[in-house]
Amino acid sequence: MRIALGLQYDGSLYSGWQTQVNQNSVQDGLEKAISAFVGDSCKDGPIKTIAAGRTDTGVHALGQVIHFDTNVQREDFSWVRGVNSFLPPSIVVNWAKPVPDTFSARFSAFERTYVYAMHIGPCRIPMVHSRAGYLMLPPHQQLDVAAMKNSAECLIGEHDFSSFRSSECQSKTPVKTIYAIDIVSDGPWLYFRICGNAFLHHMVRNLVGCFLQIGQGRQKPEWMTAVLAAKDRRIAAPTFMPDGLYLAKIAYPDEFGIPAPWLQNSWLPSQITKL
Amino acid sequence: MRIALGLQYDGSLYSGWQTQVNQNSVQDGLEKAISAFVGDSCKDGPIKTIAAGRTDTGVHALGQVIHFDTNVQREDFSWVRGVNSFLPPSIVVNWAKPVPDTFSARFSAFERTYVYAMHIGPCRIPMVHSRAGYLMLPPHQQLDVAAMKNSAECLIGEHDFSSFRSSECQSKTPVKTIYAIDIVSDGPWLYFRICGNAFLHHMVRNLVGCFLQIGQGRQKPEWMTAVLAAKDRRIAAPTFMPDGLYLAKIAYPDEFGIPAPWLQNSWLPSQITKL
Repeated sequence: MRIALGLQYDGSLYSGWQTQVNQNSVQDGLEKAISAFVGDSCKDGPIKTIAAGRTDTGVHALGQVIHFDTNVQREDFSWVRGVNSFLPPSIVVNWAKPVPDTFSARFSAFERTYVYAMHIGPCRIPMVHSRAGYLMLPPHQQLDVAAMKNSAECLIGEHDFSSFRSSECQSKTPVKTIYAIDIVSDGPWLYFRICGNAFLHHMVRNLVGCFLQIGQGRQKPEWMTAVLAAKDRRIAAPTFMPDGLYLAKIAYPDEFGIPAPWLQNSWLPSQITKL
Repeated sequence: MRIALGLQYDGSLYSGWQTQVNQNSVQDGLEKAISAFVGDSCKDGPIKTIAAGRTDTGVHALGQVIHFDTNVQREDFSWVRGVNSFLPPSIVVNWAKPVPDTFSARFSAFERTYVYAMHIGPCRIPMVHSRAGYLMLPPHQQLDVAAMKNSAECLIGEHDFSSFRSSECQSKTPVKTIYAIDIVSDGPWLYFRICGNAFLHHMVRNLVGCFLQIGQGRQKPEWMTAVLAAKDRRIAAPTFMPDGLYLAKIAYPDEFGIPAPWLQNSWLPSQITKL
């Protein structure tokens, strides 16, 4: 049978989601914990998981969804408690659910939402180190949020996002669809929420880098249109740090009954968690 | 001349405030950074700092105040930027200010405020690991906040707090004065704010441990009165984890003009940061 799990993790301690030789991946940690929980009951070899989003080094997840196949039968709550008992506190399973074999955490997903949380001010905040991006601005200096919002409009819809694609991207196509971009300013905090069907490698961090150029007045809002049209990575801003990036929500067809992510428990503000 | 600094740090990475042989203390990190900044301008030997509160291993600071003496003259903003440039992101100086030689970060302080932030729920939240205490409760089960608030009343005022004192406490007297205790419940979050003239070693964590016994219904509110009266550490609850404990604010006589802590930038809610 196929089991789906919803999980959260602190990506700052891992070399990203995906298993890599001699690296410390979230996938390795999770597969070890599931294997330890099923133990000798498992007759079908090592547990292999498939995730909705292959988050990069340092990128966090609040609403990651994965699936795996097993012959082991457990109650839903038993999967949650059992796997959690073998996980470090940096990875947590929030829910578990049996799903039909037609469900794929990766290929059934039709929408992915990332949130980028940023702190802006004259001094860093130690308590959000590795949990939020940081931009040093002198006191009383502010970003132009209206300009950033204006610049976001040209990105909505289906486009070739080659300008925001890292050279290591393995996606078959640079054409993706962005459904919505919200930019929320709250005192020294700035939040970007970006929903799309799928994302290229480093795409959200490259977009955030460009937004910040515009927010700081180094580029005009129209510059975003030019960057998008150029389909050339060299024109966009440098890739912004991974620290504030969260895979927040994955949307699936209702028929699978996949639970919503546990965002009410995050430290992100309600404007962002009401996805 | 004497300089006062206000600082924040992530205590989870340190063996507490105070310099200890072969340990990684916040004090060592800060003194190294100040010494590196003043460099060859300093004619008066290594920089030695005195702190308002000697936070324990794993305990954080949002409003720690320290002072040191030096012959080096710098602008206030130059101290902030300069020392920060030599500090890791886990320690940050928020402000600097010359103070008279009669000022002591430790002995001039007449009130210290600690905040304990706790997450309560069926699953841990990875993003607040080491930043908040954790109590596992099944879904829909809640703590009795009213009972905890009732139990707090007997603690206000001057008392012998021996029941809440660790065996390693170096304080001259177990008699301290608590001015106020606020307990704020906010969904899965619970915050304790405790103001007093001074605190014994582990006192706040021991008080939090007792509050949670009462909140879970394992003890009645009157039990706190009995624990206090017993003056016996063996009667109180076990010391609660350091993860959620923050040295939030130190109060000094107005004449010294010590700035308020930079709490508006913390991720703690406004009920708690309006100290």
